[in-house]
Amino acid sequence: MAKQKLIIVIVGGVAGGASAATRARRCNEQADIILLEKDEDVSFANCGMPYHIGGEIPDRSKLLVATKELLERRFRLDVRTQSEAVRIDRQAKNVIVRRVKDGSEYAQPYDKLILSPGAAPFVPTMDGTDAKGVFTLRNIADMDRIRAAVDQAPPTARHAVVIGAGFIGLEMVEQLVGRGFAVSLAELQPQILPPMDPEMVAPLQDDMRSRGVTLELGSGIRGITTDPAGNATGVELLNGKTLAGSLIILGMGVRPNTRLAIEAGLEIGKTGGIATNTYCQSSDPDIYAVGDAAEYLTAPLGQSMRVALAGPANRAGRLAGQHAATGTSAKMAAVLGTAIVRVFEYAVGMTGLSAKAATRAGLRFRCVTVVAGQHAGYFPGATPITLKLIYAADDGRVLGAQAIGKDGVDKRIDVIATAMAFNATVRELAGLDLSYAPPYGSAKDPVHQAAFAACNQLDGLGDLLDPDADLSGYQVVDVRTAAEITKAPLTGCTAVIAIPVDELRERLHELDASQPTVVSCGVGLRGHVAQRILKQHGFASVANLSGGATLRRRAVQ
Amino acid sequence: MAKQKLIIVIVGGVAGGASAATRARRCNEQADIILLEKDEDVSFANCGMPYHIGGEIPDRSKLLVATKELLERRFRLDVRTQSEAVRIDRQAKNVIVRRVKDGSEYAQPYDKLILSPGAAPFVPTMDGTDAKGVFTLRNIADMDRIRAAVDQAPPTARHAVVIGAGFIGLEMVEQLVGRGFAVSLAELQPQILPPMDPEMVAPLQDDMRSRGVTLELGSGIRGITTDPAGNATGVELLNGKTLAGSLIILGMGVRPNTRLAIEAGLEIGKTGGIATNTYCQSSDPDIYAVGDAAEYLTAPLGQSMRVALAGPANRAGRLAGQHAATGTSAKMAAVLGTAIVRVFEYAVGMTGLSAKAATRAGLRFRCVTVVAGQHAGYFPGATPITLKLIYAADDGRVLGAQAIGKDGVDKRIDVIATAMAFNATVRELAGLDLSYAPPYGSAKDPVHQAAFAACNQLDGLGDLLDPDADLSGYQVVDVRTAAEITKAPLTGCTAVIAIPVDELRERLHELDASQPTVVSCGVGLRGHVAQRILKQHGFASVANLSGGATLRRRAVQ
Repeated sequence: MAKQKLIIVIVGGVAGGASAATRARRCNEQADIILLEKDEDVSFANCGMPYHIGGEIPDRSKLLVATKELLERRFRLDVRTQSEAVRIDRQAKNVIVRRVKDGSEYAQPYDKLILSPGAAPFVPTMDGTDAKGVFTLRNIADMDRIRAAVDQAPPTARHAVVIGAGFIGLEMVEQLVGRGFAVSLAELQPQILPPMDPEMVAPLQDDMRSRGVTLELGSGIRGITTDPAGNATGVELLNGKTLAGSLIILGMGVRPNTRLAIEAGLEIGKTGGIATNTYCQSSDPDIYAVGDAAEYLTAPLGQSMRVALAGPANRAGRLAGQHAATGTSAKMAAVLGTAIVRVFEYAVGMTGLSAKAATRAGLRFRCVTVVAGQHAGYFPGATPITLKLIYAADDGRVLGAQAIGKDGVDKRIDVIATAMAFNATVRELAGLDLSYAPPYGSAKDPVHQAAFAACNQLDGLGDLLDPDADLSGYQVVDVRTAAEITKAPLTGCTAVIAIPVDELRERLHELDASQPTVVSCGVGLRGHVAQRILKQHGFASVANLSGGATLRRRAVQ
Repeated sequence: MAKQKLIIVIVGGVAGGASAATRARRCNEQADIILLEKDEDVSFANCGMPYHIGGEIPDRSKLLVATKELLERRFRLDVRTQSEAVRIDRQAKNVIVRRVKDGSEYAQPYDKLILSPGAAPFVPTMDGTDAKGVFTLRNIADMDRIRAAVDQAPPTARHAVVIGAGFIGLEMVEQLVGRGFAVSLAELQPQILPPMDPEMVAPLQDDMRSRGVTLELGSGIRGITTDPAGNATGVELLNGKTLAGSLIILGMGVRPNTRLAIEAGLEIGKTGGIATNTYCQSSDPDIYAVGDAAEYLTAPLGQSMRVALAGPANRAGRLAGQHAATGTSAKMAAVLGTAIVRVFEYAVGMTGLSAKAATRAGLRFRCVTVVAGQHAGYFPGATPITLKLIYAADDGRVLGAQAIGKDGVDKRIDVIATAMAFNATVRELAGLDLSYAPPYGSAKDPVHQAAFAACNQLDGLGDLLDPDADLSGYQVVDVRTAAEITKAPLTGCTAVIAIPVDELRERLHELDASQPTVVSCGVGLRGHVAQRILKQHGFASVANLSGGATLRRRAVQ
């Protein structure tokens, strides 16, 4: 009996699915590889959709990165669009496929099945979600509808409400402002970008407000209001306010498309995604799961969870495709959840755990935040990056990082994410040999500066106080110049003793060495010098306010 | 008897010296800390000097980052400028200091001595180096002289010659072109930036020529020609050519200032720098050495050598300052020699070993080069980065990387340098969780793409042929479209069989499966697909030309 051809079926083309299919082909020229996609377009750049709506990517076709024709010609894939996988018969190793056009069904045999069903936008149960002008953004058809609505909105009625201040919500705010809309942004949490720590997004919130965006934070949605013709007219909040808008974008997160997996009896993980091992295999070793519907092993907690990001989806798809095609592949590396978003002039990025997440996980951790130029301060165009490092209180292992700034944020987040892949400590970060020339960095990079401060804290050379700490009960010494203090006094603190750091040694007698003392400066550098002076002049307890007056202003509002 | 104060003496303020002094103070408020500097300015941003000459940093004072006054006020340092350390009496623990102004000398006792004497520009023995208009660039006085010469050069006589195509030489070329000079660049090696592999700098060489810079590569210098008044008129090359110019910049590298250390009997390393241990201690544990005159432990070879870069100097200074002041510090991490330079629109960066250096070291290594956008191709402003990865042939350990491009080069070099700090393999690079949003990257970053190709090669899934390989004896298949081939035929290869990758499966009969075969495309991606097809259709030997026609054009000129 002749050896039968291996049949690999892939459900869902976007991101992980197409990666899996093309990698499977490169590893196995003989296999039958079938790509099932319920929509019209088999693969497209979904991360680019907001930018086509906003006109920043004018050419729609640029988003169709891997066309059906290309996949068929180059990779000899059997691409079946408008073909929905509706059931898996694991016993018979069949996928039941429904042709969307006529509803007819057929059984497609498989040897290996790769599920990349993605996720669907969450639409809450409330009034008005089906009104005209209300949109979610998940696929090309959604994008086309929103783009048409934006194009057609009359100059007098360009009011939009975005619900949800996650990545897509913020990108839509930016793009709609660019298209001349007055935009309101409603978010249930008391801050934008809820995975971040609040003080890290404060500058962006201020910037958005300064651009005329209305931020309604910390209130849920009651419903969408409509006119008699069924057009959306605005969003009613639980706090009683109403946000007017005829264009409403729901950016309230996604729910994984796990129905197929659940009905097939595959194991579902704690966060509701399809459970996988390091080869992206589900509880059935002939069925793989990748992308937004799958769970990945994450670091640093070692927990499995859903990660709705394109990078891991692509890498997982590639590995699953190889494993399905050959029976072997590298292991999927632990995912840190590294992410970045551009909103107007700011970039905001993160990797690993926030302080909030570390607290939730019950970890003993410490934080340090520095504000430092993305390149040499003496070189034109220097602009500050605020970089926060979260690390284990005992051994200094890096647990996460967040950064905000106008340039160079992606580099610092990627450097720290890379270090975290090797369980780096802050001591190891401090020794990194990074590239330096005046247009690109500093001899002491912001990553080094943060690591230095963290090492000082671990070594007892520089205790830090969180920017939002309660300063009552402390002797608070502001070591900036009088002019600086007048311009931007220390927030949330009334009794401040002002002594410029350069006069501190001569004016020690103005302070009480027996009092618990906090020093503060602009961003923390001079504070550290002052702290060291006081500490060595016999002050019992001296902490440096992390990030100085700058961070405090963001943390205590 | 009362405990005496610790006396720490630091020789040389630039970079490592000032770092050492300020760190020592922060760690030890009681010590006497004396900073000896033979020049007028104790610390300045020497990396910024070309940009002040060119006018990109108009304000000279911006380069004086740590003034004498600041160091005295804030750090209570005893700063002695125009004070040259001329001898070390290790027995008596004295430094003999000469006052530059009057030549008088005194003995300065020390408990701990930190040497940061830096390096001096190399000036070869040849005619004309002392002519008017001939300059080296090492300190502020040099900068002021060059700037004055540039300012005063009449519009009709703005011809300059830069000798030496290292970092400073290239920065000076850029800045002088910006000031309206016709610039010639002479370099002994047959390429600019000799530490890099030649094909990596080829695009920059082309770009410089297109901007009117005359490149004279691969010829030594006979001497500098002068007129009867002693003004430089040009540079005479050993190949007989003459480069005209009244402004001559010598950028021929530096020689470490080790006289003091040698005369004191301190151990000198193989590369001529002061030998140090991981705490930056010389062979005398009370004497530290940091900066351009010291040797550092480097990775990945584990050799000690001089590294004339500001980043390691700063970190070493900081550690030495702490160790001198407290007897303890972290260890100096191995230095990779990570470096970057901007030249016109290009950034060129490297870390670790080049292929040349790996060959010299006798390592068994392999290379892969990819050409990939710095961010999503569908997002406006995408521009290619050429990224080369050098890795061990056996276990895939990353040995080095080089990159050239107009944007995002620093990030990729820093990510790989960070991974190298943890002895990463290309398999680990492939799994990095890097930040992705369309303005900043791709779901498959250039780092991933390079790592994927390297893993394929290690796994036997994608043999690569070096871009400059001799293709005679191979069946060469160009899998680009006819239009692409016409526009840019494969360099250095006459008998090419053209079959677009998308037609390859149908046209296999046009090829001889028994012949050693090379496939080539634009940058290597389609070549890999074609390679996989041929390999699995029974072709005995199929290699993919690394970087395709693009890299070959740069490698075979």
